[in-house]
Amino acid sequence: MPSIFTRIIRNEIPSHRVYTDARVVAFLDIAPISRGHVLVVPVEECEFLHQLSDESAAALGRALPRIARAVLAATGATAYNVLQNNGAVAHQAVPHVHFHIIPKHEGQHDSPASGGDGLGILWHTQQLASSDAALLAASIAQRMDDRATAIDRVE
Amino acid sequence: MPSIFTRIIRNEIPSHRVYTDARVVAFLDIAPISRGHVLVVPVEECEFLHQLSDESAAALGRALPRIARAVLAATGATAYNVLQNNGAVAHQAVPHVHFHIIPKHEGQHDSPASGGDGLGILWHTQQLASSDAALLAASIAQRMDDRATAIDRVE
Repeated sequence: MPSIFTRIIRNEIPSHRVYTDARVVAFLDIAPISRGHVLVVPVEECEFLHQLSDESAAALGRALPRIARAVLAATGATAYNVLQNNGAVAHQAVPHVHFHIIPKHEGQHDSPASGGDGLGILWHTQQLASSDAALLAASIAQRMDDRATAIDRVE
Repeated sequence: MPSIFTRIIRNEIPSHRVYTDARVVAFLDIAPISRGHVLVVPVEECEFLHQLSDESAAALGRALPRIARAVLAATGATAYNVLQNNGAVAHQAVPHVHFHIIPKHEGQHDSPASGGDGLGILWHTQQLASSDAALLAASIAQRMDDRATAIDRVE
């Protein structure tokens, strides 16, 4: 069954569209957390970012600054967050990759106590254990897939 | 003066590097909020995402799923958040564009009360006022710059 975003992209469900290209569509979030809150969605229907093709991922990346410029120009905001969630425990609500662009309007800053305009973030830093860090970095680097390497070589 | 990330990219400051291509570098965050917390940074030094060139933005977009796959494989996480902040009021701490990839590990879910592993999000939805939505969407769409349109046309 197509996702709700695929149905929006196909115009089977109405939306307030702000951007369309061959691989990417953007529209207003129907439950915004600030004015100008936009969803940027690949036409390719994948649940998670790590499943996305290189082509869709590059098109999404290229579209984000363009759409951000237009959102800032239209709303007057100067600050914003870009957020993309993968997995229910990471707050993903729709199983089709989407980036949120969320303006943060002046004078309406969030705080955990008040709630407020835009994205509120809870950020509890840990120590990067030096004993773990080198091994962890090597382990991630080793798992970069061959496809990435192969594509980088031909470029 | 070069940003701290430019100095890391130039290897003037040590880091735990996990990925490098011509336009993008990724390394472990030195103050992680979960194990495997990685920063993905364009070589192009811009303060904000909306200032980034199409080429850097596309390269960043393409790198994100690749790096996410490797982070998941190395850490065993299945859920994660991707976050990119623009402006001090939006929690930007370093004035050089960077995407956070933040694993969310099983059994260590965040809550506003406990604090916990990974990214905690405060999400206060508003009504999308139907009187405003159509005008707002049209206003954003009209502000998509000509460069974007021109590039889309030649593709």
